[in-house]
Amino acid sequence: MNISHIEHIGIAVKSIEEAKKYYEEILGLTCYASEVVEDQKVKTAFFQVGQTKIELLEPTSEESTIAKFIEKKGEGIHHIAFATSGIENELKEIESKGINLIDKTSRKGAEGLDIAFLHPKSTFGVLTELCEYKEK
Amino acid sequence: MNISHIEHIGIAVKSIEEAKKYYEEILGLTCYASEVVEDQKVKTAFFQVGQTKIELLEPTSEESTIAKFIEKKGEGIHHIAFATSGIENELKEIESKGINLIDKTSRKGAEGLDIAFLHPKSTFGVLTELCEYKEK
Repeated sequence: MNISHIEHIGIAVKSIEEAKKYYEEILGLTCYASEVVEDQKVKTAFFQVGQTKIELLEPTSEESTIAKFIEKKGEGIHHIAFATSGIENELKEIESKGINLIDKTSRKGAEGLDIAFLHPKSTFGVLTELCEYKEK
Repeated sequence: MNISHIEHIGIAVKSIEEAKKYYEEILGLTCYASEVVEDQKVKTAFFQVGQTKIELLEPTSEESTIAKFIEKKGEGIHHIAFATSGIENELKEIESKGINLIDKTSRKGAEGLDIAFLHPKSTFGVLTELCEYKEK
């Protein structure tokens, strides 16, 4: 594995408009980008904190996994994403070690990253994402 | 606020011995320290990932808030800690802005940091810690 740092922490919120005030006015962070990821039925807002981003996730549909997460557990931390390289080989390697993968190969996520999720049943309850920047 | 980076992410686990295998053998991280924090009735294990640490938290008593967290929500991400400076003034400032504090002044946490928690009711469900390195 080639993990270099924590790329982002995903946080499920009911309303980005409301939560953004806390991150900006209380914590003093700056929202530098916002985008809708149709595939995941979420609206996102990003804040850079050192090497790591805070990614707020607001569901755009009741079908969104984020809507279901909030319904079940309430607003809060949803996942951790590790920045890595060679993601396809890494997925094969960790699957061969018995880790349950949500994504057997990577797919496109927010900010154009190649991403894949590991199942929290294999990761001691932590929904874990691997992600990789790809040169175009 | 003077937040510079994410100091650590706290993760509640039933057994550090078991979870450590995942972080070391699957993710390829190295546990560089382990300590018992009597005050919080937890055993901890630390892994450095870029600027940020993963802090595994195993309860040493059923009275531990970590034991209660696991009982209620299962194993998983427990809190995010932001590294900052001037923590005492910051606590006063954010309390004056209506944020509910768990710790009105800082106390000693793991690794000798001065730490204070904000209440998740004020932070959109995210148990949030501020922490500061103090020169001796």
